[in-house]
Amino acid sequence: MIYLDNAATTKPCERALSRAGEFLTENYFNPSAMYREGFALQGELKKARSSLLSYVADPTAFEWIFTSCGTEADNQIIFGAARRGNAVTTAGEHSAVHASFLELRNRGVEPRFAPLNRDGSVNVEELLRLVDEKTTLVSVIHVNNETGAVNDINAIAKAVKAINPRVLFHSDGVQAYGKVPIRLAKEVDAYSVSAHKIGGLKGVGGLIKRKTLQLPVFIYGGGQEGGKRSGTENLFGIKVFEYAAEEKFATLKADYARLREYREQLWGLLDKELFVLISGQNGTPYILSVSAKGLRGEILLHMANDQGLLIGTGSACSSNAKNRYSRVILACGHDEKTADGVLRLSFSPATTEEEVVKAASALNSIARELTKRMA
Amino acid sequence: MIYLDNAATTKPCERALSRAGEFLTENYFNPSAMYREGFALQGELKKARSSLLSYVADPTAFEWIFTSCGTEADNQIIFGAARRGNAVTTAGEHSAVHASFLELRNRGVEPRFAPLNRDGSVNVEELLRLVDEKTTLVSVIHVNNETGAVNDINAIAKAVKAINPRVLFHSDGVQAYGKVPIRLAKEVDAYSVSAHKIGGLKGVGGLIKRKTLQLPVFIYGGGQEGGKRSGTENLFGIKVFEYAAEEKFATLKADYARLREYREQLWGLLDKELFVLISGQNGTPYILSVSAKGLRGEILLHMANDQGLLIGTGSACSSNAKNRYSRVILACGHDEKTADGVLRLSFSPATTEEEVVKAASALNSIARELTKRMA
Repeated sequence: MIYLDNAATTKPCERALSRAGEFLTENYFNPSAMYREGFALQGELKKARSSLLSYVADPTAFEWIFTSCGTEADNQIIFGAARRGNAVTTAGEHSAVHASFLELRNRGVEPRFAPLNRDGSVNVEELLRLVDEKTTLVSVIHVNNETGAVNDINAIAKAVKAINPRVLFHSDGVQAYGKVPIRLAKEVDAYSVSAHKIGGLKGVGGLIKRKTLQLPVFIYGGGQEGGKRSGTENLFGIKVFEYAAEEKFATLKADYARLREYREQLWGLLDKELFVLISGQNGTPYILSVSAKGLRGEILLHMANDQGLLIGTGSACSSNAKNRYSRVILACGHDEKTADGVLRLSFSPATTEEEVVKAASALNSIARELTKRMA
Repeated sequence: MIYLDNAATTKPCERALSRAGEFLTENYFNPSAMYREGFALQGELKKARSSLLSYVADPTAFEWIFTSCGTEADNQIIFGAARRGNAVTTAGEHSAVHASFLELRNRGVEPRFAPLNRDGSVNVEELLRLVDEKTTLVSVIHVNNETGAVNDINAIAKAVKAINPRVLFHSDGVQAYGKVPIRLAKEVDAYSVSAHKIGGLKGVGGLIKRKTLQLPVFIYGGGQEGGKRSGTENLFGIKVFEYAAEEKFATLKADYARLREYREQLWGLLDKELFVLISGQNGTPYILSVSAKGLRGEILLHMANDQGLLIGTGSACSSNAKNRYSRVILACGHDEKTADGVLRLSFSPATTEEEVVKAASALNSIARELTKRMA
């Protein structure tokens, strides 16, 4: 099996699982318990928070709230921050942000969507034009989960604050954290991440926020996570996240460089008579989006599946939506025919050159066969 | 080590962990992915949902929503159901319900709290007096997490509906599910449960709801959980929950009977000159609440800790709240002195008679020593 759908989810890191195992079998206590064994887990939580935060932000200025997933982190910041006026985002957001912005309308906040460039990055000039004195929140995805386009969130945050310094600037960093180098600028107020995209477990996420940022409570109860997110802490999942991130960040630059070569190699090997490129040159090395000319991505996906090659057609998280065409690919300016043929090939540091070569060959032969059948 | 704090959290079930292991190491795919391996996980989700639901409710009338914890399930139903008028609950709720009801006031809904009987069960007559034509939600905890008192939620739901059939009736079943026999009556509209109280993992919970009950979206995004709770499904945690529940429900009656004897035995062995009983006779066999006369529970807890006996003083989830006295114990009608001495001893099916005997002996000698020191 060749697994090239790592942007949907990736295999949990075995070393991280094994290191965190004690929190399942021995140290399974409730971190709020008052005996020594429980209280010690508060220290483990603190270590995890501080380690996970340190890779991308200044720990004197930012803090970390554990959530149950990236989607929850996005919901928490959007509904916590956009309480009046208007809120600005991009047409290239993951559904966790997109659907939340649509809901803002029902809550008396005007959502505004900035258009995309061809590669899926936001048109910054147009975005800035949407920001005014009534804007309360701006949310810009860091790495687009469908095309892999990288937005320069630090620069965009600075430009937004120059127009209105009271705006809260948030970025969905789910496809960036542990993969793409970033140090959050002081103009970024909040950043959402997810564990299971980098070898952690599903069911764990984080919201990085500026310490001075006051947010309303998101889930009421026992007062965990500084009172903002109640519920017994999922310490096993949290420690797997901590340990998986430790490994990912240790090799981030080398992985980045190697996967950039693989991505170029994969695109280089694909038959240009059969495929067009959707991703831009400056996108994340972890995602290559292409479109099979005149074909349906979904059919290619199933044929690849039969050959043991697992790939995506877009965001796995949008497959519940009944739209045939990806709203993000259309927002890049592609027509419905192109959107229909989209394949997302996404890597992990475990991806090998051999897999890349085999995947290209399989995709070429499948697309060729399907094209013949259609003729 | 003797662990008698199983109401705070209990050791994950080893067989369940091992059976679910494949969802970490092999079948780690995103259940929304369209290839066979991903799609197959939809079947696994469905099996888990149906199995977990079947133990307590009629699957033709009820459905199951996975949440990230019991607290989230409580929040989802309370804020989803109580949108106007008044909402009635008890003075004996877990903080997940209590804190949410306090927040209702800020959202224009009047919260009403019914008083408790001496054992921590709700005074049903007084509760019913609070229900009127403007009541939108009634929430009554099934098993009190501090005293172990069991409320007859089916009978209460019937009585509530007789007053106002439009009321939504909810029960927090976190300390009941998998421990206390229940078959939800048709008058119960929703029921919250948690995995980690019965050998599942922290980070997984469920909201059982009547199929005909329309709830607003709680977390917006990719549309998982029928659109009500987005976020990539935590399939590993979900399967551990399914398998742990399978074991718990298989032996529920035998465990119930055995632990009832242990609870009586433990109370019987405790020195009545040193301890008074807080729990009632008809409480869950899983919780024994006592108060050490003239002593502070917290000090006893730490002394027991030194002897390898782990116990609680009340709800672990309230330890973040800075109140010295449990609001629930005070609501039972006990004075502050009694509330200060409270110890919660909570069992699991793995608790042995030997542990019960040793715990009683340790508690007697600790309380005796402390009483002497105080004299």
